[in-house]
Amino acid sequence: MDLKPTKPLSGFIELLPAQQRCFDYCAAKMQNVLRLAGFSLLDLPAIERAEVLTDKDNWDEIETQMFLFQKGDTKMGLRYDGTVGLSRYVAGHLNNLVFPFRASQFSKRYRGERAQRGRYREFYQMDLDIMGINSLSTNYDAEIISVISKALDSVNEFIGPNIVYIGSRPFWDAVFDFLGLTQNQKKDVFVLIDKKDKMGDDDFAEALKDTLNNTEQENTIKSVFDDGYKKFVGKSEKLDAAISELNEFIKTLDGMGIQNAKIDLSIARGLAYYTGLVFEFKLPEHPEFGTAAGGGRYENLASKFSKTKIVGVGAAIGFSRIFASMLENNQIDLTRFVNPVDVAVLVMGNNNVAYASQIVNVLRENGIVAVSYLDTDKKFKNQIEYADKIGAKFAAIIGDDEVANNVVALKNMESGIQESMSLDAAINNIKVK
Amino acid sequence: MDLKPTKPLSGFIELLPAQQRCFDYCAAKMQNVLRLAGFSLLDLPAIERAEVLTDKDNWDEIETQMFLFQKGDTKMGLRYDGTVGLSRYVAGHLNNLVFPFRASQFSKRYRGERAQRGRYREFYQMDLDIMGINSLSTNYDAEIISVISKALDSVNEFIGPNIVYIGSRPFWDAVFDFLGLTQNQKKDVFVLIDKKDKMGDDDFAEALKDTLNNTEQENTIKSVFDDGYKKFVGKSEKLDAAISELNEFIKTLDGMGIQNAKIDLSIARGLAYYTGLVFEFKLPEHPEFGTAAGGGRYENLASKFSKTKIVGVGAAIGFSRIFASMLENNQIDLTRFVNPVDVAVLVMGNNNVAYASQIVNVLRENGIVAVSYLDTDKKFKNQIEYADKIGAKFAAIIGDDEVANNVVALKNMESGIQESMSLDAAINNIKVK
Repeated sequence: MDLKPTKPLSGFIELLPAQQRCFDYCAAKMQNVLRLAGFSLLDLPAIERAEVLTDKDNWDEIETQMFLFQKGDTKMGLRYDGTVGLSRYVAGHLNNLVFPFRASQFSKRYRGERAQRGRYREFYQMDLDIMGINSLSTNYDAEIISVISKALDSVNEFIGPNIVYIGSRPFWDAVFDFLGLTQNQKKDVFVLIDKKDKMGDDDFAEALKDTLNNTEQENTIKSVFDDGYKKFVGKSEKLDAAISELNEFIKTLDGMGIQNAKIDLSIARGLAYYTGLVFEFKLPEHPEFGTAAGGGRYENLASKFSKTKIVGVGAAIGFSRIFASMLENNQIDLTRFVNPVDVAVLVMGNNNVAYASQIVNVLRENGIVAVSYLDTDKKFKNQIEYADKIGAKFAAIIGDDEVANNVVALKNMESGIQESMSLDAAINNIKVK
Repeated sequence: MDLKPTKPLSGFIELLPAQQRCFDYCAAKMQNVLRLAGFSLLDLPAIERAEVLTDKDNWDEIETQMFLFQKGDTKMGLRYDGTVGLSRYVAGHLNNLVFPFRASQFSKRYRGERAQRGRYREFYQMDLDIMGINSLSTNYDAEIISVISKALDSVNEFIGPNIVYIGSRPFWDAVFDFLGLTQNQKKDVFVLIDKKDKMGDDDFAEALKDTLNNTEQENTIKSVFDDGYKKFVGKSEKLDAAISELNEFIKTLDGMGIQNAKIDLSIARGLAYYTGLVFEFKLPEHPEFGTAAGGGRYENLASKFSKTKIVGVGAAIGFSRIFASMLENNQIDLTRFVNPVDVAVLVMGNNNVAYASQIVNVLRENGIVAVSYLDTDKKFKNQIEYADKIGAKFAAIIGDDEVANNVVALKNMESGIQESMSLDAAINNIKVK
């Protein structure tokens, strides 16, 4: 019989135990930051109705990008982000939630597209959103940025420091108005701005020319990427309002202790959702990861689900992508995560299993990670080899003598020193280590 | 425009924040028991190749039970249990793992069948497995049972005590041999035994008659459900070996401190995997949930993936099913989980955001859950209402006076007493509460 493949499907991450412990350690650190900031961790279904996932009726088109299936008459699929489920959830529970509502999610997302290097088809993201009914101060945008910065800081031993770049949708709107662009031109130019990083400067200039065919307009737009908002000050009320909002916002961030924020008007964050300030976090020590986290403000999150206007600010931290890549590149020192076991309890002879198990239970009750080796017919040599292989800090050897004398033979696996002692003394020894 | 539905798909669980905190609290308690017992928590892909999920070539047939999809030439689907991925993983990492290998999983599983009451299409299970190469003492079966019992005990404030019932595949084999059944009869009768609980006694007796048409054989089999193994002692070597294994096993469990174990030969655990002892945990205070956890021994876990023989014992705790049902029935007191916030920091006037944010940061650094109310133009009345609604234990009110005097006005939300004090004093007050 042919054996089945043991590798996971391409685009799916599968970690070894020590890697997984490191990943879980980082996730717990970041989640604790969110918990202390009062975010409620939600765990929403991974599967949603197709009509919730998309507005498009074109099943064939979205099928290439998503994992979709049909059960009876119901078309459904795996979520590709956390926002779509959150919108549905919040709209469905308006009366059960207190606003401003702080929600976080840490869950798997799915992309049904063809697997590519560095692109995952299953990945974790950590989302955080603060939502208000009808209105919400932009102070909350600053609060979200502050919390993300602290979440990334909580794992800076692995990823180094972080910087946040702030962009503005209203600024671009004001620029387009100032230049007198038509609705269609506005939309097309914004798509280009969003894609500029991927296109490169030359292709961007050419596409801009194709769209506008007006050298002055083109140069004015291009100037933003070199000189920022400088030349737009005092040009229109709308421009001044957008520029002033940006500068006030940087001041608010500074007041909150976020000194690593910079204005970068090239930040666009795609076409969906966002209507106000937008932001992206980068890791200066890891430019190869691009954006580590990103988000922005939305004017009406759940308009598809509710007549109540839900205004908010949200962001996602691209958790899997960063960590899986760093693990792949051996950029993470896993030493601390390789050996989780404190004591291997080795049992010489099946008569001693009961005594050994009582020892194991007491060790665990004392918060000590204890693993018992229960193939009791195996020689001491094999058993101590096991203790060594799993990297146990101690071996507690239980034979007839230990049972008769109500002691354990505790061997320090690093020094090799072995000593008979009471269980209480052993626990003290292990806890000191 | 028609609004989209806000309810999740039927068969999918969606919890409110307090419910989710209770669920997460229980999961963390149980996972800590597994961690202290040296289990490595694995997080495997939720999507596997169809050929990994099933041996059947009949796509149409399995499609009714699973969530399946095709990308390019590859058929794939969502996992329905944890064992199928674990087999693949262990076979693929034989050289990276130390055996006996202790693996745990806590992840979502999927069933593509039609939704029914009490049946979920997305649910969590907590798996634990101990695997050896070529052989593994049945002491490990006892260890798994001990760990599950302690995991369930760790949440007994919610689910009450647990009892484990032990069955034996070898016992039934020996009974069938003793009765001289053919291979086909053995298989058919075992299917009936597995289904007996659902069928009821009368249908079982009738189906048994249809299969065997031999009153003596039928009565002998039925006697097991009334009298256990008693009348089989001394009838064959194989029977005596199976009965002796069972009794020895109960003794081992007793030695490990598991006094809540009983032999129940009606426990069958389906047709797949298991080849030795099998077991099921029930909750005496919640008979309505049936089996809370179940598992058993398998002779060759990964034969489809590797020529190396992986012997082991594994089990799954039906986590979602129990908790979702208890929540639905209002059987869980959520009081402790309703109000996670220690302090609501209320900010009177936008000039005071920077000072308030510094306060918030220091509170959080001290492990205090602090939420800031940043719509600073809202009246005091609205802000204190928010603090009340989110159930904050304290409100820290920051206005011009507090900033000028470098203090906070700390209001105990229960007693209503409000006092001006330094941040350090406030932290002490909050921590005492």
